Amino acid sequence: MSYRIIELNTFTKTMSIEKINFKEKLSKFSKYWEPKVIAKLNDYEFKLVKIKDEFIWHHHEETDEAFIVLDGVMYIEFEDRTIKLSEGEMLVVPKRTKHRPYADKETHIMIVEPKNTKNTGNIEDDFTAPNDKWV
Amino acid sequence: MSYRIIELNTFTKTMSIEKINFKEKLSKFSKYWEPKVIAKLNDYEFKLVKIKDEFIWHHHEETDEAFIVLDGVMYIEFEDRTIKLSEGEMLVVPKRTKHRPYADKETHIMIVEPKNTKNTGNIEDDFTAPNDKWV
Repeated sequence: MSYRIIELNTFTKTMSIEKINFKEKLSKFSKYWEPKVIAKLNDYEFKLVKIKDEFIWHHHEETDEAFIVLDGVMYIEFEDRTIKLSEGEMLVVPKRTKHRPYADKETHIMIVEPKNTKNTGNIEDDFTAPNDKWV
Repeated sequence: MSYRIIELNTFTKTMSIEKINFKEKLSKFSKYWEPKVIAKLNDYEFKLVKIKDEFIWHHHEETDEAFIVLDGVMYIEFEDRTIKLSEGEMLVVPKRTKHRPYADKETHIMIVEPKNTKNTGNIEDDFTAPNDKWV
């Protein structure tokens, strides 16, 4: 009996595993600056975001934030300099570091950060997007 | 005086931020199945791995593990099926799930997982690679 339960658990677990294709997921939304969750890793999330023009200055009090550029070019402005990120590049913004992302043209990025991280960090604003929106 | 200290802290923090170019990092090592850390996010790490041929069956008792294919094609074999991952695709292997990665040709991947995760999980083997090897 216990053997059958173990088998069932294994089956359920691997059936829930899905590969994620970034382009396919990106084709399913168009709004800028609204992160869409595509995968969960423990209590962290992988989110796709389409960005264009300027975001707002903000920081995250409790967490670092990883930006990975999938397609296009983005800039992350810090108080003393700006870093350009192109496709195939990433950067981790340390917690409590003020930053402002922007892109001249539509750019597609992936963010990795803990679940429930607010996109505008310490700021509540029109750019504040709901969490847990999966695509 | 306190104002000057705040300024110095900000400067130190943003000077330590570096963008990471995957291709540039991948050009710096060649050995298969030895993860190289490229970035830290809180207590998680981003690791690049060059893979070819078969890895060993293993699982991670305490953590999920994210695989992202940067270049090439890899397979992740589970007990009941095998999933093919190509460039621009990712997959999260849930904790305690037996899996075996392999690739027919040299393939470049990124792994995201907590710091100190052993590459061979529950197994100690010739494939077991040291942690904290940065590139």
